[in-house]
Amino acid sequence: MKHSFITRHRRKAGMAPGSLFYTGDEKELQTHMHAFVYNSESVEEADVARIGDIDPGTKGKICWLNVTGLNDTKTIQDIGQTYQIHPLVLEDILHVDQRPKLDDADDSLFMVLKMVTLPSGTDNPQWEQVSFIIRKNMVITFQELPNDAFDSVRKRLRENAGRIRKSGADYLAYALMDALVDHYFVFLEVLGERLESLEDRLIADPGNAGSGPGLIHHIYQLRREMIFLRRSVWPLREVVGGLEKTGSGVFQKTTLPFLKDLYDHTVQVMETVELYRDMLSGLRDNYLSALSNRMNAVMQVLTVIATIFIPLTFIAGVYGMNFEWMPELRLKWAYPAVWLIMCTAALFMVLYFKKKRWL
Amino acid sequence: MKHSFITRHRRKAGMAPGSLFYTGDEKELQTHMHAFVYNSESVEEADVARIGDIDPGTKGKICWLNVTGLNDTKTIQDIGQTYQIHPLVLEDILHVDQRPKLDDADDSLFMVLKMVTLPSGTDNPQWEQVSFIIRKNMVITFQELPNDAFDSVRKRLRENAGRIRKSGADYLAYALMDALVDHYFVFLEVLGERLESLEDRLIADPGNAGSGPGLIHHIYQLRREMIFLRRSVWPLREVVGGLEKTGSGVFQKTTLPFLKDLYDHTVQVMETVELYRDMLSGLRDNYLSALSNRMNAVMQVLTVIATIFIPLTFIAGVYGMNFEWMPELRLKWAYPAVWLIMCTAALFMVLYFKKKRWL
Amino acid sequence: MKHSFITRHRRKAGMAPGSLFYTGDEKELQTHMHAFVYNSESVEEADVARIGDIDPGTKGKICWLNVTGLNDTKTIQDIGQTYQIHPLVLEDILHVDQRPKLDDADDSLFMVLKMVTLPSGTDNPQWEQVSFIIRKNMVITFQELPNDAFDSVRKRLRENAGRIRKSGADYLAYALMDALVDHYFVFLEVLGERLESLEDRLIADPGNAGSGPGLIHHIYQLRREMIFLRRSVWPLREVVGGLEKTGSGVFQKTTLPFLKDLYDHTVQVMETVELYRDMLSGLRDNYLSALSNRMNAVMQVLTVIATIFIPLTFIAGVYGMNFEWMPELRLKWAYPAVWLIMCTAALFMVLYFKKKRWL
Amino acid sequence: MKHSFITRHRRKAGMAPGSLFYTGDEKELQTHMHAFVYNSESVEEADVARIGDIDPGTKGKICWLNVTGLNDTKTIQDIGQTYQIHPLVLEDILHVDQRPKLDDADDSLFMVLKMVTLPSGTDNPQWEQVSFIIRKNMVITFQELPNDAFDSVRKRLRENAGRIRKSGADYLAYALMDALVDHYFVFLEVLGERLESLEDRLIADPGNAGSGPGLIHHIYQLRREMIFLRRSVWPLREVVGGLEKTGSGVFQKTTLPFLKDLYDHTVQVMETVELYRDMLSGLRDNYLSALSNRMNAVMQVLTVIATIFIPLTFIAGVYGMNFEWMPELRLKWAYPAVWLIMCTAALFMVLYFKKKRWL
Amino acid sequence: MKHSFITRHRRKAGMAPGSLFYTGDEKELQTHMHAFVYNSESVEEADVARIGDIDPGTKGKICWLNVTGLNDTKTIQDIGQTYQIHPLVLEDILHVDQRPKLDDADDSLFMVLKMVTLPSGTDNPQWEQVSFIIRKNMVITFQELPNDAFDSVRKRLRENAGRIRKSGADYLAYALMDALVDHYFVFLEVLGERLESLEDRLIADPGNAGSGPGLIHHIYQLRREMIFLRRSVWPLREVVGGLEKTGSGVFQKTTLPFLKDLYDHTVQVMETVELYRDMLSGLRDNYLSALSNRMNAVMQVLTVIATIFIPLTFIAGVYGMNFEWMPELRLKWAYPAVWLIMCTAALFMVLYFKKKRWL
Repeated sequence: MKHSFITRHRRKAGMAPGSLFYTGDEKELQTHMHAFVYNSESVEEADVARIGDIDPGTKGKICWLNVTGLNDTKTIQDIGQTYQIHPLVLEDILHVDQRPKLDDADDSLFMVLKMVTLPSGTDNPQWEQVSFIIRKNMVITFQELPNDAFDSVRKRLRENAGRIRKSGADYLAYALMDALVDHYFVFLEVLGERLESLEDRLIADPGNAGSGPGLIHHIYQLRREMIFLRRSVWPLREVVGGLEKTGSGVFQKTTLPFLKDLYDHTVQVMETVELYRDMLSGLRDNYLSALSNRMNAVMQVLTVIATIFIPLTFIAGVYGMNFEWMPELRLKWAYPAVWLIMCTAALFMVLYFKKKRWL
Repeated sequence: MKHSFITRHRRKAGMAPGSLFYTGDEKELQTHMHAFVYNSESVEEADVARIGDIDPGTKGKICWLNVTGLNDTKTIQDIGQTYQIHPLVLEDILHVDQRPKLDDADDSLFMVLKMVTLPSGTDNPQWEQVSFIIRKNMVITFQELPNDAFDSVRKRLRENAGRIRKSGADYLAYALMDALVDHYFVFLEVLGERLESLEDRLIADPGNAGSGPGLIHHIYQLRREMIFLRRSVWPLREVVGGLEKTGSGVFQKTTLPFLKDLYDHTVQVMETVELYRDMLSGLRDNYLSALSNRMNAVMQVLTVIATIFIPLTFIAGVYGMNFEWMPELRLKWAYPAVWLIMCTAALFMVLYFKKKRWL
Repeated sequence: MKHSFITRHRRKAGMAPGSLFYTGDEKELQTHMHAFVYNSESVEEADVARIGDIDPGTKGKICWLNVTGLNDTKTIQDIGQTYQIHPLVLEDILHVDQRPKLDDADDSLFMVLKMVTLPSGTDNPQWEQVSFIIRKNMVITFQELPNDAFDSVRKRLRENAGRIRKSGADYLAYALMDALVDHYFVFLEVLGERLESLEDRLIADPGNAGSGPGLIHHIYQLRREMIFLRRSVWPLREVVGGLEKTGSGVFQKTTLPFLKDLYDHTVQVMETVELYRDMLSGLRDNYLSALSNRMNAVMQVLTVIATIFIPLTFIAGVYGMNFEWMPELRLKWAYPAVWLIMCTAALFMVLYFKKKRWL
Repeated sequence: MKHSFITRHRRKAGMAPGSLFYTGDEKELQTHMHAFVYNSESVEEADVARIGDIDPGTKGKICWLNVTGLNDTKTIQDIGQTYQIHPLVLEDILHVDQRPKLDDADDSLFMVLKMVTLPSGTDNPQWEQVSFIIRKNMVITFQELPNDAFDSVRKRLRENAGRIRKSGADYLAYALMDALVDHYFVFLEVLGERLESLEDRLIADPGNAGSGPGLIHHIYQLRREMIFLRRSVWPLREVVGGLEKTGSGVFQKTTLPFLKDLYDHTVQVMETVELYRDMLSGLRDNYLSALSNRMNAVMQVLTVIATIFIPLTFIAGVYGMNFEWMPELRLKWAYPAVWLIMCTAALFMVLYFKKKRWL
Repeated sequence: MKHSFITRHRRKAGMAPGSLFYTGDEKELQTHMHAFVYNSESVEEADVARIGDIDPGTKGKICWLNVTGLNDTKTIQDIGQTYQIHPLVLEDILHVDQRPKLDDADDSLFMVLKMVTLPSGTDNPQWEQVSFIIRKNMVITFQELPNDAFDSVRKRLRENAGRIRKSGADYLAYALMDALVDHYFVFLEVLGERLESLEDRLIADPGNAGSGPGLIHHIYQLRREMIFLRRSVWPLREVVGGLEKTGSGVFQKTTLPFLKDLYDHTVQVMETVELYRDMLSGLRDNYLSALSNRMNAVMQVLTVIATIFIPLTFIAGVYGMNFEWMPELRLKWAYPAVWLIMCTAALFMVLYFKKKRWL
């Protein structure tokens, strides 16, 4: 699958700010809502048909509402009205070419992030926009695609593993973001393996013209993936780094070390991307040098062969001339002598080229 | 249409600061004024012949005065006197090689921005300078060209769509800037499509010498457009980012989220430009590699052919010599033997080159 | 005229700090002083022979003393003593390889700037160092060369044009700096025209080897000019930007908008230089690509021709052999058959190369 | 030994934050604990079997606990419980793809650093993660590998050399970090020697195609080592620079000059890495230029030879034609005349090429 | 003389911090002390055998102690004890691969700088480390080599020239640093002259293959010198810039303008180095372009010649065939006709190549 890197904004051009319109590609997917309501004692899990059906955060419970598929503008608008979400925030949720960002309202945080997942059995990354609304007792997440990216969190919720059921909505939000960042590591590992296999191919067969065009194309494609990855990762770091500094009080003090750990992970993702870019550009230089080296070696050998035979052919041409008066032609030892001259000349040239290390 | 990137300042050199002189190319266009006066109940729209004819901001109404065509210095000066505009501001309005900037006076904001529009049915961007004067009840905009760039705002004003008629002059200014930034997205989309089509051509026909010179020229032209775009976009971001921090009180608190949204859009424009530059430079490298690869492959095959035939021709030349005493010439089996030798030599060379993967 | 970019400091090495010595090239020029003394009612203008002859700033008048030619150390020292100028400042005035800078004393500002002028009828820029000493009622300027760079200011002083005669010494200093920055625009325009003409030549004749060496040399020279220009412009911006922040009270509040305007101009100069550098490097890349493209195309066509004829020549060589027993030679249809074979082979190769798009 | 630069995170993906899992390669190594307990009068040194066996910091003594081999998660967990270490810190200790970092708790510092050692008799660097926990009377270090990196500190402890026994745990931590940074210098020296030997090879034999492919490969490998080194050194500097600014009071005032000295050393390591990168890229450019120069020289000489003989062969070919009416063939002086013509032509071409300096 | 850029630290590795060991190359030089004791009335100058012999700063006199040759660790240690110098400072003085730095103690400043001198009659720069200890009435300088770098200061001290005898130890320190920075200008001038002469050679003989390898080697060597120079100059600027901000009160207010002047000089050194680097990289690009241009021109001409003669040789080959039935051979006008055909073909090709501008 090819990325289209064209920013799609035109569809909105001319509309009033705040108009709701899903700008992504997944237009056939139905909008689907799934909710967890839990505290340390119990957990309830249900698909939600109408937004009015769930009762978030009563009796000190935490509610996580996960919305997948953003095409049903009506449902999104209902959610917006039920939970008093600002129209520009709703627009950002649907406008999936959004840059990762963090908005900090009084008692609510809004985040847009990019998630990359690798559908099982394939190496093609699937990019989607994930939006978070984080409140005191509630987390709402909006995904473009239904996938298993947050399944590790769901499992921990169901099994009451770790501290997730004992903590608040802020820890849930952290756990979801941590899962999201983990998927970057999975993708980085795939990229790293592709990079290493390119490197192995280059070392095994430096400057092989046969595999050449393929190799440069792979390098170019990898570079493209890196550019996309980098474009998501830099603002991701800003967003995670900004979380600690929000004054909204959504994140409690006990969750801060986890945020710091998450921030360290995003920095590591970023540095690995930069490292890979550096490796890739070195690989590219090395490949081009090897290719040019090989080409030079080939041309040189071939040219040397031609250069040896051209003067010999000239000599043969001379004695192929039909002049009546060519005294050499009559001499009995002339023919072997010419052979001797030609062999001597060839030998001399070979030795000279050897000495000059041209051969 | 070719951009001229020469900065035209000479015409002004030697004049006293504050002299009025239009430095742009559109010298034939007549200066034309158009005014909207509105509040949430009513809207009046009229062409304005003399600046004295309009009565801005009476009875709590908002006035938007749009001036197109900057050649009529007299009219500009009249506007300046009527609304007490600083001479240096008037000079900046007419000096259309101005860098985008924001000036913050006591109760008035002055902005110079660059707008790019695509006249319908063409891909040639049209750049013009747009200046804004924003006051409590009034917005004055100065355009070099009469075009439909602000028609979406006009439509919303006439149809009372969205919140524009219910809000103040600051929201009007925001809506106009938002329209201006939207045109950058339209232009970016055109550039993105051109970039993708170049990429497709390159993948379809890597290193095709026939299409080659054209491709590199397209890449160069696209790069040029990017340089111009970038030059406008960087200060645009500064200007929009600076709006929030002005102490002039022109922008009310309710408009600030919209300004932040606008700022996010300008950042996105900027990052897309950087992304495209990155893609373009990768594309260029890839193209040059493919070209050089292809050239190498061609030269190699051709040189190999020559290298095989040159020794054979030498052998033929030897037996074309006219020496009287060449015993081989008499032997009946000599001719087929020479053929055999030549075929064997050719076969050996072909196999050797194959093994070395030179063929 | 070639720039010498060698920094000349040696002449001073070993001398005590504060020693006066002119380090520039214009050693033959006589030092010459010219003074304007004016207020809004009257203006007096005179050449000054001895520094004691002028009476600066009496009766609320403003005095502008312009010194051209810095070779006469004695006169410079006299000025220094008369107006209590710090020895290090005098040294900086004479040390004309100085970097542009701003020194802020109690009631006096000292500035070193670089000025570029284009002597009429030529495109060779002339660089000189211009130093400013700005006090409450007085401006002293030191130029290396007598030229017409400040004539526009003189004209406005004589004709009482604009606000110059009504304002103080700070506005005079601003007007002089504005004239200096205007000359950068004139120079930029010349550079821009040279850049555009190079671009036109390249588009008209991409990769023309004939004009090639010339083109690359022009690009190199233009790049050199840019490097010099850039070296002056970056600190110029710092100096002008620093003027607003001086605490010396030399610049009055009414002059500040003009300083801001001047600062915007220096930023524009700087950005234009960066733009030109960017254009130039793109032009260079494009030129080298075009050259290499053209070279490749030529070599390819030529090699293809050789490759077609070499096998044919081999066939002809075979039937030029003198073996007694070559049955083909006797056959009547052999000669036309060989022609047929050779033509078929040639045709086949041409078609093959066409198909491969090598021809 | 090849570095694998793939970031290994996947094993953890899906686990709850705080799960303990060693992510490194040294899975066979047994976890081993060694403790020093000392003050200025006495020093005790012992292998520790169970963590409960040591009594840290009683009676004002300092305790250094060194743990090598991180595979035994149980032991690490015991240490964590005994000394109340935060679960995220324990996770960072085991997660050995960690970026160097500094965490600052109330009365305890946690550091992750990278150490490079050169096993004796080899030039292959061995990278490992070293974690420090520094408290008032105790330092705990975690190494992946058992090696002699800290032997210089152990020796000074045993011999009561320098001030180490007289100072507190903070000086011990400094001494350990100083030893760690010293190993970077040892590695830098090896890299510097490899760089110099490459330079010498290049100067001795510029553009030697024989040694060529090897040279570029060595350059590429050295560049790779630099990239890894740089990746560790940049955050190392941050960590050491951050130590002075911690508010935990672990570092006493008398130790601060030593920290500053250590910081200067890390800056020097960093600048040397940058210098080597710069040298290496210069070396690479120079090598490629030399290679291309040499190739050009070879091709030129060979092409000149071919160019001289091709016209001569043509002349010989003409007089090898078998036309019945070729009057020149009958002339007695024709054959020597042809020789004369051919020699003259050859001489002329040689002189022309010499004049043009093509030969 | 070749720089060795290997950082020598290993000799120290394993030693306790604060151990004294000279790491430089000048191991044979004897340590030598020379002292000036002066005030505005008198000056005494003497070689010092034992450190106890001098009586610094009694009776308000200023003492300058200059130590050359750092091999005698004992003497250095004596100086350290006599003047209470911190052991880490002494170590930095002897560790001559030190990075330039400034340490600010209570009533004492410690500086490490790099000095470059050009021994008379040679262009080989000699680098050494110079350390300064500056106190209220005393300056101690440590040089690796005995040379005349500070002779200009000594002369001014002896002759009571300028303000040096009338000022304090801070002015003496400034004068010494000023002399040190002056030597950078001398070196820069030498580098500038070498750069200009390379440029002249390139303009005089663009792309001359004969002088080629030499030119690229000179460029590479100059680049190397720049890298070393730059490595010293960047921290030099930091050190001089930091002097003004020290709170130690060593520098009096009257000396501050001189420090600012010195700082401007170091900035100028730094910018000149950057300018030269820029020029050098432009020169390198230009040289490589010229070389490649020239190569292309040569190859093209040679290939064109070959391409013209190869088809002609084929025609001659055809009529050298020995078929019995070749009717053309019998025709009397056939031979001149073949000549005509061959000349026409050659002329046509020459014209075609001329038109295509390949010749």
